[in-house]
Amino acid sequence: MYAPIKIRLAILGSTGSIGRQTLQIVRSLPDRFTVVALAAGQNLDLLAKQVEEFQPQLVYYQTESTTKKLECPAQFMPMEGMASYPNVDTVVVATSGIAGLFATIAAVKSGKNVAIANKEPLVMAGEIITNEAEMSDASILPIDSEHSAIWQCMIGEPRRAKYIILTASGGPFRNYTAKQLQKITPQQALQHPSWQMGKKVTIDSATLMNKGLEVIEAHWLFGIPIEDIRVVIHPQSIIHSMLEFYDGSVKAQMAYPDMRLPIQYALLQPDRIPNPDLPRIDWEKLKELTFEPPDYENFPCLKLAIDAGKAGGTCPSVLCAADEVAVDLFLKGKIAFTDIASLVAETLEQHEPLMEPSIEDILAVDDWARDYTLELARKKR
Amino acid sequence: MYAPIKIRLAILGSTGSIGRQTLQIVRSLPDRFTVVALAAGQNLDLLAKQVEEFQPQLVYYQTESTTKKLECPAQFMPMEGMASYPNVDTVVVATSGIAGLFATIAAVKSGKNVAIANKEPLVMAGEIITNEAEMSDASILPIDSEHSAIWQCMIGEPRRAKYIILTASGGPFRNYTAKQLQKITPQQALQHPSWQMGKKVTIDSATLMNKGLEVIEAHWLFGIPIEDIRVVIHPQSIIHSMLEFYDGSVKAQMAYPDMRLPIQYALLQPDRIPNPDLPRIDWEKLKELTFEPPDYENFPCLKLAIDAGKAGGTCPSVLCAADEVAVDLFLKGKIAFTDIASLVAETLEQHEPLMEPSIEDILAVDDWARDYTLELARKKR
Repeated sequence: MYAPIKIRLAILGSTGSIGRQTLQIVRSLPDRFTVVALAAGQNLDLLAKQVEEFQPQLVYYQTESTTKKLECPAQFMPMEGMASYPNVDTVVVATSGIAGLFATIAAVKSGKNVAIANKEPLVMAGEIITNEAEMSDASILPIDSEHSAIWQCMIGEPRRAKYIILTASGGPFRNYTAKQLQKITPQQALQHPSWQMGKKVTIDSATLMNKGLEVIEAHWLFGIPIEDIRVVIHPQSIIHSMLEFYDGSVKAQMAYPDMRLPIQYALLQPDRIPNPDLPRIDWEKLKELTFEPPDYENFPCLKLAIDAGKAGGTCPSVLCAADEVAVDLFLKGKIAFTDIASLVAETLEQHEPLMEPSIEDILAVDDWARDYTLELARKKR
Repeated sequence: MYAPIKIRLAILGSTGSIGRQTLQIVRSLPDRFTVVALAAGQNLDLLAKQVEEFQPQLVYYQTESTTKKLECPAQFMPMEGMASYPNVDTVVVATSGIAGLFATIAAVKSGKNVAIANKEPLVMAGEIITNEAEMSDASILPIDSEHSAIWQCMIGEPRRAKYIILTASGGPFRNYTAKQLQKITPQQALQHPSWQMGKKVTIDSATLMNKGLEVIEAHWLFGIPIEDIRVVIHPQSIIHSMLEFYDGSVKAQMAYPDMRLPIQYALLQPDRIPNPDLPRIDWEKLKELTFEPPDYENFPCLKLAIDAGKAGGTCPSVLCAADEVAVDLFLKGKIAFTDIASLVAETLEQHEPLMEPSIEDILAVDDWARDYTLELARKKR
């Protein structure tokens, strides 16, 4: 009987949204995967359940933030150890913020398949990560629906595309006026119309910062200049992105919004396995797909990110750090929605960029930007 | 200096719409192509100009229909000879109706690249042609925008798709009532909203017969069962068709309606060469793409074709022959627009299908169906 070789997974961030959906894929296709390692942050209750169900060899959680301990036969190991562990084929980086940076670098250096949902590593250290991947022959496999779409449209093409058309839902406040935007509460902002996501990503989607980060990520993943990456608002979130080729032909990838599809594709590519749990587009019900240009004025984060990407060096790291702090302040009710962009902009203005930074440079800049943004916010109150 | 090897072309049907646009591609990319052979029907004036411009070695035109003769240094040779001529790499079959059948078979048997715009050969003799191509290692390269789209979405995929989503503009009479359809004049029907095409194809587009023929063609080109080919009306004609894969992911190919793109792709695939003459989608102006189910009741030709495809054997040949006669009668003002479907349906009803037919069987059936349809039309008047 046909029995495929099982892919051995390390899932970093297993209790988060992408981590949980990755485990759903494992559940749907149990003869395809073995879970070797699970790493979480502070959600020990869920991690305990996952450990019981998937019986990993290795486990990690943030001990400093908890006095509890997980009682299980799995060996405790930091994420970088998991990411380079010999018995692991594919590392799923589903952490958030800067947390996954070192693990991503470790996985890439070990020549693993690195399925990456965490934006910051590529945005902050895209040059380092892609160079390391080239040397070690690691594959960087995007899990983001947009980058997965680009990748699916790229396979089989002999030359890279001319343009990337990155689609964006536009977020829940697409048609808000500047005045309305100022008054948005964290609660309102956490209701995304199409996607189920973590809090940080949901706010980044609402400010369009997320789309800006994706532009930078796409640049590193596909080697296309940022100037040739176009953002188009597509509120239905059915077309997940497009490639425009040198002959003018455009290829688009479509699906109902469901992160399990890009996760499964990243894990099993180039193969496509029937998975009855994944939704199919209902062609009788799909009435229209619409497009409009982004509103750069009311959503300045998009342009801030694109400009930081064009400037390069340490600028994207400052952008990420300042944004992480600002979003956190907004979620805590300490600043207005529109302050997120102002804080990021002012922090970027004060930064003297360093070109071709080392990881140490990036971390130093990250530290500086976090402090600076916090300080700025404090002064404004 | 880099000088690519020129592709040596035989263009059958050079004075028709596809033939002329093929020569436009040759004009746009002169270092890519040499025109070895040109074959036309009765438009000797245009053929003479083409011969002067492209200096082919071989030429063909229908001598029985003209007393004129073309004075040129090119050798006169029937289309089957051109199609198997050693100095030809790619045969462009841009004839219409049954005319290209023998040339297509000759080209396929000689292992050529066969870029095919003429629907009837594949619809009538799909099994014979694809079997011959497999034996001789010939490539059948679709020029139809729909099949080109499917092909572009297929490249690089390790397994065939689950479904083909074939898009259709719906034709100029998409929203007409049954009563309105009866009164359509040939003049009205010849105004297609998006595409520039020959007369026969334009009428077939208006009846949706064209889409039905494309379903059968797609079946032979991509090995997907007719049951798994779905037709969706997409009036903007921007998405030229889609593939839905086993994991639910959909890939679509898009461009403004311009046949030069699929022609160029068929000739140069998998490469995509910048051609400044080809249009690019303006993302600022593209507002919406809409979809709706086809109206099988008011456009019975679509279902007739799909059913003939499912029945197989000689049924698609009867369909093609009856349709060719009926469209001709409509263009001559002898029958109503809605009579096209009735004549085809009645002819199909009277046919006793033959499975796995030889070319001789197909030709005999073609003869019978033409006579029968004409006779039917005569009786009705």
